Amino acid sequence: MTASENPDLKIAQAHTLKPIGEIAEKAGIPEDALIHYGKHIAKVDMKKIGEPKEPAKLVLVSALSPTPAGEGKSTTTVGLADAFSLKGKNTMVALREPALGPIMGVKGGATGGGYAQVVPMENINLHFTGDFHAIQIANNTLAALVDNSIHQGNPLNIDPRRVQWKRVVDVNDRELRNIVVGLGGPAQGVPREDGFDIVVASEIMAVLCLATDLKDLEKRISDIVVAYNYDREPVTVRELEVQGAITLLLKDALNPNLVQTLGGTPALVHGGPFANIAHGCNTMIATNLARSLGDIAVTEAGFGSDLGGEKFMDIKSRFGDFGPDAVVIVATVRALKMHGGVKKDDLNTENVDALLEGTSNLRKHVENVRKFGVEPVIALNRFPNDTEKEIKAALDWAEENGFKAALSEVWAKGGEGALELADQVLKAIDEPVKFAPIYDTEDGIENAIETIAKEIYGASEVQYVGSAPAALRRLKKNGWDKMPVCMAKTQYSFSDDPTKLGAPEGHVLHIRDLIPKLGAGFVVALTGDVMTMPGLPKQPAALRMGLDDNGEAFGLF
Amino acid sequence: MTASENPDLKIAQAHTLKPIGEIAEKAGIPEDALIHYGKHIAKVDMKKIGEPKEPAKLVLVSALSPTPAGEGKSTTTVGLADAFSLKGKNTMVALREPALGPIMGVKGGATGGGYAQVVPMENINLHFTGDFHAIQIANNTLAALVDNSIHQGNPLNIDPRRVQWKRVVDVNDRELRNIVVGLGGPAQGVPREDGFDIVVASEIMAVLCLATDLKDLEKRISDIVVAYNYDREPVTVRELEVQGAITLLLKDALNPNLVQTLGGTPALVHGGPFANIAHGCNTMIATNLARSLGDIAVTEAGFGSDLGGEKFMDIKSRFGDFGPDAVVIVATVRALKMHGGVKKDDLNTENVDALLEGTSNLRKHVENVRKFGVEPVIALNRFPNDTEKEIKAALDWAEENGFKAALSEVWAKGGEGALELADQVLKAIDEPVKFAPIYDTEDGIENAIETIAKEIYGASEVQYVGSAPAALRRLKKNGWDKMPVCMAKTQYSFSDDPTKLGAPEGHVLHIRDLIPKLGAGFVVALTGDVMTMPGLPKQPAALRMGLDDNGEAFGLF
Repeated sequence: MTASENPDLKIAQAHTLKPIGEIAEKAGIPEDALIHYGKHIAKVDMKKIGEPKEPAKLVLVSALSPTPAGEGKSTTTVGLADAFSLKGKNTMVALREPALGPIMGVKGGATGGGYAQVVPMENINLHFTGDFHAIQIANNTLAALVDNSIHQGNPLNIDPRRVQWKRVVDVNDRELRNIVVGLGGPAQGVPREDGFDIVVASEIMAVLCLATDLKDLEKRISDIVVAYNYDREPVTVRELEVQGAITLLLKDALNPNLVQTLGGTPALVHGGPFANIAHGCNTMIATNLARSLGDIAVTEAGFGSDLGGEKFMDIKSRFGDFGPDAVVIVATVRALKMHGGVKKDDLNTENVDALLEGTSNLRKHVENVRKFGVEPVIALNRFPNDTEKEIKAALDWAEENGFKAALSEVWAKGGEGALELADQVLKAIDEPVKFAPIYDTEDGIENAIETIAKEIYGASEVQYVGSAPAALRRLKKNGWDKMPVCMAKTQYSFSDDPTKLGAPEGHVLHIRDLIPKLGAGFVVALTGDVMTMPGLPKQPAALRMGLDDNGEAFGLF
Repeated sequence: MTASENPDLKIAQAHTLKPIGEIAEKAGIPEDALIHYGKHIAKVDMKKIGEPKEPAKLVLVSALSPTPAGEGKSTTTVGLADAFSLKGKNTMVALREPALGPIMGVKGGATGGGYAQVVPMENINLHFTGDFHAIQIANNTLAALVDNSIHQGNPLNIDPRRVQWKRVVDVNDRELRNIVVGLGGPAQGVPREDGFDIVVASEIMAVLCLATDLKDLEKRISDIVVAYNYDREPVTVRELEVQGAITLLLKDALNPNLVQTLGGTPALVHGGPFANIAHGCNTMIATNLARSLGDIAVTEAGFGSDLGGEKFMDIKSRFGDFGPDAVVIVATVRALKMHGGVKKDDLNTENVDALLEGTSNLRKHVENVRKFGVEPVIALNRFPNDTEKEIKAALDWAEENGFKAALSEVWAKGGEGALELADQVLKAIDEPVKFAPIYDTEDGIENAIETIAKEIYGASEVQYVGSAPAALRRLKKNGWDKMPVCMAKTQYSFSDDPTKLGAPEGHVLHIRDLIPKLGAGFVVALTGDVMTMPGLPKQPAALRMGLDDNGEAFGLF
């Protein structure tokens, strides 16, 4: 494959980028706060950033329950921001960083697409400024320090069977899911069962993404529970006395990364926690910085509004003491047809009936967002195979139901393709917002889970199965039951069963385990199987990648 | 601990660095070839560098057989280069990058010391420009692709018991030395024995450090043997068809990193392979660039002249078609006394007799270097506890034996502390050099090993034990027996027994295994136990590290 066969990368490579200093100036970031990484990327030295101005309006981009290919949330986020810029609004984008594992696996890239991308896409998709690498080595240094403490006399009385802290790599590597470590005799560590997660599943990632500054980061790292001792008491990083070293390794990673969209809008691309076992949005620092610099900050959260969206509003907004002024729900004709019962291979065939059937899923997302006191706007993200009839049917359905909606053609047209969407969002922003999280942490973890299950997922009941009842008792015993809950659920369904599409009702939500993440400040509730280490497909995207004779990349998309 | 208790970091932090553009100008590197990483670090875009001028004189800094604490090779390299700069010579330094694992373990830092450091030491010692992270993820992506190929139907018929490619982390993590991976059933990979190495032991590191450009890098990566199939035939990266993706991940890492010494001398700090199972010196690209820009290029190689030094001259010089014009052998009073039989705890007590006894080791290193046709210069690197009597005894001994030698006080005085050493080296450079590697690869691998064993190590005999005889047959069968040999031997002794100090003679060198590294282009010969994954000590250096209230690092040294 050559570069010419790859539209996203080709568009990005053909684009003439502005020097990052110019972008910073536009964003009101002083030159002396920039730590340059080449000509088009800079970290922002937060020590050089003054007090925030009047906060910008915050637009959250979420989605309906997605197809496996995704519905174009990042693309919409970027295109919408460029549309705001075209309308003369001082706009900042805040996005997650792509993970390398999935890029080499299926994704091939994760910086938007077509004419709605953040650039330089090649660098952002590969090592960028090294944040994920820093998180990886901080995570793994901590793991080695835990095992070394056990090996060197075990002064903290750690039960090797109850080490919680796993190692991570930014590789889709199923071979490392279940392993036995420490074999080879007394000089080679302590034998125990273990496993690797992908780096975006590290609690260090969640912690970095919620920290407000270096001090807060160190405090959160200190609080992380790495193991339990033989008396079943938690052992934290503070007791290992290595929070300083781990924070030191993350010092640069905590500074947000400034890049630009193809439309020249300043964009902060920073952090990228999973949207299932973590909260699924970019760093608090990037969001706060984006909010403090312009008229409008546009950000996104992973998977559908039931996952990343709910967590943005119940976890991140709670910690950050803000809320979205508008929520965009990205929908596609493809996803609507899937929710209407169409099989994956038939999604490119026109099917208005199935599409209308599938609106049940979108309707539930709209209703859910309203429960947080925010008015949603549907962005119908156009794909090449969508027919005019299907698009009209979807937009008519929205109008008939009194939902704000607009067609979005940002992949093909950039910001110009989202001007009507931008108008709709600006109208939504002007409406009075009475944002609030949907549960109160003081009412306890069971109430939080039940509220989300019933209000957001449409479940009739919550059942605690497997390890969950014991885990719940342990949470209460340790006083950890008044934190927000981070639901780890399939992104494909409102229920914990990925095959239940549309808007299932009356189902039972099964909680399998509850994992306290004291550093992040939330409790992960596992429902169904949640994969924390993806595998590679039979034909990994890596097979298509390379460098041409001029040293230019190909195969990213 | 605070910053004030840490002299190296304190000196580095107190120093006012020149903008890296100024350093580049001094080095003759055009501004448009700089890819900035903050104000004081830049990668040099090799695509923007023209043809080399008349090559500079090349000075290799090596050492006698070291104590566990090291003898100050990097410190001497930096100080000597600054001394050349003070004498008006246009000088470039080429050094290895530090590995994070040992920094968090025992070392605390590896960028020289005192007033002979490369700076910014904090950044260089932590993530720097991410080269090691890129190598780590390239290595581990390749590992996942190998196991995925086995998992997905095993089209290359790979024998899971004969996978050669190990995963790596840049952490001292003994827990990962011997592991079992792929447990959990058919969906979770293929169960097999495995283990992690530290990142500097990766063949990707060796390959990156020997590659001359991107094309050569991709060719070398293609040649790597990752496994053997059930017919015992080698399986290479080329057959996996992922050399493009792996090279893509290393694209930026291949560009050398420009920094400065405390004396303002331009320094390229790039790559860092082990000096036992790999060749132990910075990248070929950095050495070639340093040679093409000034009057004098000063570089170093790991451990003593029997390891890194021998490999620099027999492997790197052979591939690069150059040779050192002078070799500096760093010696210390401490190491001489150790070789004279003094125990570790008594090394700070004056003992001239033991020192003179220990010169047997240094004499052998001098004689060895002469065998390559190069005149060595001894740099007696002063430590605070050395007495005047000891220093005089060592220098008198050198003079009586007709060896070039000078006291080096660069830790305390920077370049000013190496002016006499610089004069001695300049004299050595002016002598006619008839450099040549000491063996011819065409004479076969056994001849190469025997030549090194007898000429350099003083052994009387080579014995092939354990897996070695079968490995030798396999090398011959596959036509891999005409490559240079990379000896993996303890750094503490000329023999394969680390307790045999001084200059042992008549010993038997045991070859335990022979491992072809087709990408690097050499065969590793294992003698004794060679550790490819270090462990952490009881009190890791990480315990002392952190950030103060101003966000400044402490605990690096």
